[in-house]
Amino acid sequence: MSDAAESLYAPLFGDDGIERCFDARATLQGMLDFEAALARAEAATGVIPAAAAEPIVAAARAEHFDVAALGRAAASAGNLAIPMVKALTSRVAERDPEAARYVHWGATSQDAIDTGLVLQMKAALDILDAKLALLVDALAALARRNASVPIVARTWLQHALPTTLGLKAAGWLSAVARARRRLVNTGREGAVVQFGGAAGTLASLGGRGFDVARALATGLELDLPDIPWHAERDRLADVAAACGILAGTLGKIARDVSLLMQTEVGEAFEPSAPGRGGSSTMAHKRNPVACAVALSAAARAPQLVATMIGAMPQEHERGLGGWHAEWRALPELIRVVAGALRAMNEAIGGLEIDVKRMRENLDATHGLVFAEAVTMALAEKIGRAQAHTVLEGASRRALSGGLSLREVLAEDDAVRAQLGPETLDALFVPEAYLGMAQTFVQRALAEAGT
Amino acid sequence: MSDAAESLYAPLFGDDGIERCFDARATLQGMLDFEAALARAEAATGVIPAAAAEPIVAAARAEHFDVAALGRAAASAGNLAIPMVKALTSRVAERDPEAARYVHWGATSQDAIDTGLVLQMKAALDILDAKLALLVDALAALARRNASVPIVARTWLQHALPTTLGLKAAGWLSAVARARRRLVNTGREGAVVQFGGAAGTLASLGGRGFDVARALATGLELDLPDIPWHAERDRLADVAAACGILAGTLGKIARDVSLLMQTEVGEAFEPSAPGRGGSSTMAHKRNPVACAVALSAAARAPQLVATMIGAMPQEHERGLGGWHAEWRALPELIRVVAGALRAMNEAIGGLEIDVKRMRENLDATHGLVFAEAVTMALAEKIGRAQAHTVLEGASRRALSGGLSLREVLAEDDAVRAQLGPETLDALFVPEAYLGMAQTFVQRALAEAGT
Amino acid sequence: MSDAAESLYAPLFGDDGIERCFDARATLQGMLDFEAALARAEAATGVIPAAAAEPIVAAARAEHFDVAALGRAAASAGNLAIPMVKALTSRVAERDPEAARYVHWGATSQDAIDTGLVLQMKAALDILDAKLALLVDALAALARRNASVPIVARTWLQHALPTTLGLKAAGWLSAVARARRRLVNTGREGAVVQFGGAAGTLASLGGRGFDVARALATGLELDLPDIPWHAERDRLADVAAACGILAGTLGKIARDVSLLMQTEVGEAFEPSAPGRGGSSTMAHKRNPVACAVALSAAARAPQLVATMIGAMPQEHERGLGGWHAEWRALPELIRVVAGALRAMNEAIGGLEIDVKRMRENLDATHGLVFAEAVTMALAEKIGRAQAHTVLEGASRRALSGGLSLREVLAEDDAVRAQLGPETLDALFVPEAYLGMAQTFVQRALAEAGT
Amino acid sequence: MSDAAESLYAPLFGDDGIERCFDARATLQGMLDFEAALARAEAATGVIPAAAAEPIVAAARAEHFDVAALGRAAASAGNLAIPMVKALTSRVAERDPEAARYVHWGATSQDAIDTGLVLQMKAALDILDAKLALLVDALAALARRNASVPIVARTWLQHALPTTLGLKAAGWLSAVARARRRLVNTGREGAVVQFGGAAGTLASLGGRGFDVARALATGLELDLPDIPWHAERDRLADVAAACGILAGTLGKIARDVSLLMQTEVGEAFEPSAPGRGGSSTMAHKRNPVACAVALSAAARAPQLVATMIGAMPQEHERGLGGWHAEWRALPELIRVVAGALRAMNEAIGGLEIDVKRMRENLDATHGLVFAEAVTMALAEKIGRAQAHTVLEGASRRALSGGLSLREVLAEDDAVRAQLGPETLDALFVPEAYLGMAQTFVQRALAEAGT
Repeated sequence: MSDAAESLYAPLFGDDGIERCFDARATLQGMLDFEAALARAEAATGVIPAAAAEPIVAAARAEHFDVAALGRAAASAGNLAIPMVKALTSRVAERDPEAARYVHWGATSQDAIDTGLVLQMKAALDILDAKLALLVDALAALARRNASVPIVARTWLQHALPTTLGLKAAGWLSAVARARRRLVNTGREGAVVQFGGAAGTLASLGGRGFDVARALATGLELDLPDIPWHAERDRLADVAAACGILAGTLGKIARDVSLLMQTEVGEAFEPSAPGRGGSSTMAHKRNPVACAVALSAAARAPQLVATMIGAMPQEHERGLGGWHAEWRALPELIRVVAGALRAMNEAIGGLEIDVKRMRENLDATHGLVFAEAVTMALAEKIGRAQAHTVLEGASRRALSGGLSLREVLAEDDAVRAQLGPETLDALFVPEAYLGMAQTFVQRALAEAGT
Repeated sequence: MSDAAESLYAPLFGDDGIERCFDARATLQGMLDFEAALARAEAATGVIPAAAAEPIVAAARAEHFDVAALGRAAASAGNLAIPMVKALTSRVAERDPEAARYVHWGATSQDAIDTGLVLQMKAALDILDAKLALLVDALAALARRNASVPIVARTWLQHALPTTLGLKAAGWLSAVARARRRLVNTGREGAVVQFGGAAGTLASLGGRGFDVARALATGLELDLPDIPWHAERDRLADVAAACGILAGTLGKIARDVSLLMQTEVGEAFEPSAPGRGGSSTMAHKRNPVACAVALSAAARAPQLVATMIGAMPQEHERGLGGWHAEWRALPELIRVVAGALRAMNEAIGGLEIDVKRMRENLDATHGLVFAEAVTMALAEKIGRAQAHTVLEGASRRALSGGLSLREVLAEDDAVRAQLGPETLDALFVPEAYLGMAQTFVQRALAEAGT
Repeated sequence: MSDAAESLYAPLFGDDGIERCFDARATLQGMLDFEAALARAEAATGVIPAAAAEPIVAAARAEHFDVAALGRAAASAGNLAIPMVKALTSRVAERDPEAARYVHWGATSQDAIDTGLVLQMKAALDILDAKLALLVDALAALARRNASVPIVARTWLQHALPTTLGLKAAGWLSAVARARRRLVNTGREGAVVQFGGAAGTLASLGGRGFDVARALATGLELDLPDIPWHAERDRLADVAAACGILAGTLGKIARDVSLLMQTEVGEAFEPSAPGRGGSSTMAHKRNPVACAVALSAAARAPQLVATMIGAMPQEHERGLGGWHAEWRALPELIRVVAGALRAMNEAIGGLEIDVKRMRENLDATHGLVFAEAVTMALAEKIGRAQAHTVLEGASRRALSGGLSLREVLAEDDAVRAQLGPETLDALFVPEAYLGMAQTFVQRALAEAGT
Repeated sequence: MSDAAESLYAPLFGDDGIERCFDARATLQGMLDFEAALARAEAATGVIPAAAAEPIVAAARAEHFDVAALGRAAASAGNLAIPMVKALTSRVAERDPEAARYVHWGATSQDAIDTGLVLQMKAALDILDAKLALLVDALAALARRNASVPIVARTWLQHALPTTLGLKAAGWLSAVARARRRLVNTGREGAVVQFGGAAGTLASLGGRGFDVARALATGLELDLPDIPWHAERDRLADVAAACGILAGTLGKIARDVSLLMQTEVGEAFEPSAPGRGGSSTMAHKRNPVACAVALSAAARAPQLVATMIGAMPQEHERGLGGWHAEWRALPELIRVVAGALRAMNEAIGGLEIDVKRMRENLDATHGLVFAEAVTMALAEKIGRAQAHTVLEGASRRALSGGLSLREVLAEDDAVRAQLGPETLDALFVPEAYLGMAQTFVQRALAEAGT
């Protein structure tokens, strides 16, 4: 077989480090790490001869095995563990036939496959956490630096009132910081060994099953769950959900950045680089490449979460179909999210800001975004109802006449009687109508621990 | 308009208490509670006249309003808050025109809608928690009572080895207890007030926005978030995911129970009652009605979670489309899960067990489920490899000859030389090959705090 | 129980006509129509006494029954048909005890439920088709009227080259016309009666089952399928997919319209009306209400399709869980799509266009959108590679200097040597660089049959 | 980078032929085929020099290019076409610099990427169709051969009445035949060239754009759509839905087969083979490996369909995020379905039947499955109501007393008065109570064209 299409797509949609967590070698090594740790745990607890462990450990290196052959054998065996155990046993037997008798002792295929997946997942979540720390820092810096930089707030894609770029970034920060905590928490809950033997009772280990399980967990630096979880998949589904929600948050940032990059808006831009998002014939184009990656992740991740949750009703002690659906869905989900995270780290880390354009856009509706501010000021003099009527009329005249609201109000006797020109001018300054923006930014920064 | 089809379906697929959390009245009351608490918070902080609060509070009762008319007005306004505020203002004005000027002061529609939804959600999660407590207790009792009752473990829908009914129930218990904790945790994280005004800055409240926000949160017994979250929807998505995962776990229990109820298996049954799951022409039928409800929830919930996560990339300060998708998806999800929980409480609370049939099924393969037990015993005498060869041959002969494995082994010289008849008999007793089942049950009971 | 929240949400997210297809009355009537037609078919084929049919037909009116009581009874029966048949039988018995013996003769619950759903679906699809015809006409008019109105094409949310508003509308038209055909085709395939009796064999009707089935289908104006389809749900899933794809296409139009409505873009607008999408304090706001509805449908529909497809693997002759998941998912999907269709009919039917603004936006990049046009013209004189180099440099100078590309080129000796001022001017006219836009519009109009 | 995990998983979850349609080489070749055909079409229509075509065609072979390097370049370019065009141009230039100037002439990246994907999809659908033909034949043979072999019908996983294995298979056949037609139809609709240039107008080709498009379509043996469809993705979504529905149908068959294979049921089995689905320690186990593959596909496919539909609302002339989500989702979906199809061809092609066990299971409820048959016979004598009362009592006595219904009825005076022993015996023969089973099988065979 030729290369999988992954070699074409992974650099764009993935993340190098995470791709390595889920490639064929890592998948195999995850299961082999289980077998090695099992042998050591069983030797330590006297279940197998002490001398049997190290030959098994030594053989349990993915590079020793023929990945393609194992894949083919899995097709008829129904899972990867069966041919893996066979191949591992053969390899051990070449050097130590006695030790070979103790490979996979007391375990079932699912013990190796699930624990292997947990190990891969744990390694991947550690990488994601480090990259989330970078994004948190970048967003915190963005929020702090622009805490008082006015930008128009847009609701339903329409100009509303002024806000600050810092508050916008603080909203992103707040959500990313929560996503990070959620990933750490679910990852910790999910970092449990799977070890139950064929029926979840560890019966073939007699009375020593629990001791082996405990030693195995310790050896793998995983938690020992209360009970084997062959057909109870909620912990994995929970990690999946946390990944999906992270993808949603990254998608939200990407949505905003791509909207800010629109030719007509032009307030913020992904960093440019030679060959990045450009177009040879259209020099003015600057495609939001990172946003496209994050948005595509946000389009795919929810369904991968649904696959993981939908696969949960697995039959009896070990199911069929549901369990198998997880094998590719969970790695795929983590890879997709990792790609989005890499992309948004690039985008936010090098985000280019056009403060002048933000100000121009604030002015684009000729002061209408300050109507609420004037209403509130006037209300203190003439009551809110009347103030509102005045402003509604003035706004309408400004809009239809192509005039600025400031000019219209300056001509309005009712207004002039209450608000002098300087007072009026002060009301059309975005900086003066930012409410709690600074407070909220500070709170988000504090909450994110930055 | 005639009744919504909900009146037909809700009793089967829902839960009375939860239905009431999300009916038209409760939806309206959620928003009105926001308006009432806002008026009090603003009166307390001096933002509006002290006298304005109580007239607003008094008017903010859902029963005062015409639900259908509000629904129709929402169709052109684009949301329910706009006509609700208008109707509330009118009602307040009838009694106190001055107070009417302060309705919804400084808030935006989304503040009322989101906070209302959070209040509904919080009430619903409290109910779910109480019902989960019942299910945890019922499962704990089931696990404890049957900790040593043998049942065949089935993997890939095939007989494997003996396990115990208690261990099976302990697996369910373990997952339900985790689901409960998850729902409590995400529910707590999600119980935050929404209050940011039109742009998320609370600008129209001048310098007092934060004080109002704090008083508002206190008044509603909700947490005050670091920052308004109009377009950062991860907390709701997280509650949704916890609900979806609960549905998955309930679906897993339902899958198992429905498989145990199969005519050919007959080991456990939903409780029977007149008119429940019966068939007038087929007296032998006993349809797993509760399982059908839980399985249908498990089929629907993952997609509702995906909708919530997929809706996350909302535009700028307040989005369009994504936000609107949540309004029905989240209540629908909680209702679906609540129905599954009600159903499984019925099923588990009254689960009928046929221990005799379990034993018969254990025997149905004529001892083959004990092949592993004999292998392990023989291995101590003649080594594992040889033991395995012996058993493989014996199993094959038993299977093809329609004989019991016990008989075949009794005729086998290699076996007879090592294991006396009594020893052999002892190996064909399920109770003797249960490994750590008891330990695991105890651990699950302890972990579930029961 | 209070009103379902549907009374609040249906006007915004639904469509009156479609809501009536799926309310409690219609759901009940669908099943009753099955029972009535069955009685007539069985009387006509001599399976039941001729006199038994009309009393059953007369009683089979939804208004005779207590919807809430049936809903409650369904909760323990497991489906609606069991209590419906019981209630229908009672009602018939009051007038004609003999006829009452023949109610539901030879049918199973699922026969009534599935056929009822098919009848509801068929009525709903007819309504959708009529509304799609309106949308096709509106889009065709829009495309025709604006076939040569220039607008900037945007790719990756960046200005690219000129296109026409007509071509944009023709793209929408083309997809909507296909969606309509798809709905008609899948609806026709899905309009099949369900009639198989308890095991799908119609055994209780002896040798006359097939004749009854044929007469029943004729009576209901449904097709007779090759075979009962109790556990083969692909036809319904196919209708669901067609609905989901329609939602996707409507969502695409809504996405575009909402982007065109952005304050900074301002090229097209949903129609305005008093109280529609406005904001009392922000006179400049014009919220894309219809787009929000369509985009929320596009966010929800894909998951409802997934629920229908995911529910397909139903057990044996009649499944549990999967079948039940369909009962609400399919109606919900059709309702959601109907709401989106109603909304987009409103939006497109009254779409307001700002041609002047389109022209201004085309000019916003100071001619850069014509770089490709100049390149092609110059290439004929000096070769494409050199032309490209010239334009790349000129574009860069225009961009950095804030100059128009036209000006920069006018100063460029290499250009002046080849292209005179008039030739150059002609290259900066959008109308001159529209390629096949007209042809494509005509083709789309023809293909849509308009 | 090491091998993608695909090398491990593809043999189990995929299909060799289909994997080759979507590997890196095929993905690249799809785009190159577009470029080659474009050059020929443009040469034929005089848009580029006649001599330029063949050097481009000659260079457009995937094996000439460095897949990994293209993948890396795509990461910053944002898509694969940009580096592909660059690499192709370089390669052409090495041999013919003049021809190199005409690579990708007038096309946009999406033209190449979409058309390439369509070509891959078309090849894959042809393979699927051939494999579906095999499955249709196998199912038809199964249905024909077992048209009158009794098996118990199970509803809600409970025994109901007798049916035939042939009717069961005919249900599968009927759905598979429809799935095949659906795939052919949607595949034909989707086999359209994409060619619109940067803005969908083909402006850079002047007046000859349409001629080139037509020649291009002809050259690629694709249809020419009415209009470019860069942001109208319904055709692909429709193919996706057809694939998803096929997965659902295969999952339904797999669900049934795996339930029939249960140790307690034992009526049908996937073919056995050395190393296939076995277990070394549990000789009696026979894991339904093929069913696990098909069920996992049925768990994953619906969400992949949802991803494709959810990605439809793409922005303006070419979107971002939604389009990118398709690149892996559609191939993944087709691969998943292909794996399920391969698996079910194995399972059904070699399905082993245990007719004796079917009969035993029919008898397992001691005649209760014939209660309806006796009721109908008795009803002709004493009326249906009384007959029903008699049978209800008898069934209850049989069930509680562990007696056969036949025996209980033989003791019942009311029955003995009406039905002689031979008549009664005849009512307990499954073959006598199969209704229209044969007719339905014949109809399904005819409808499937077999």
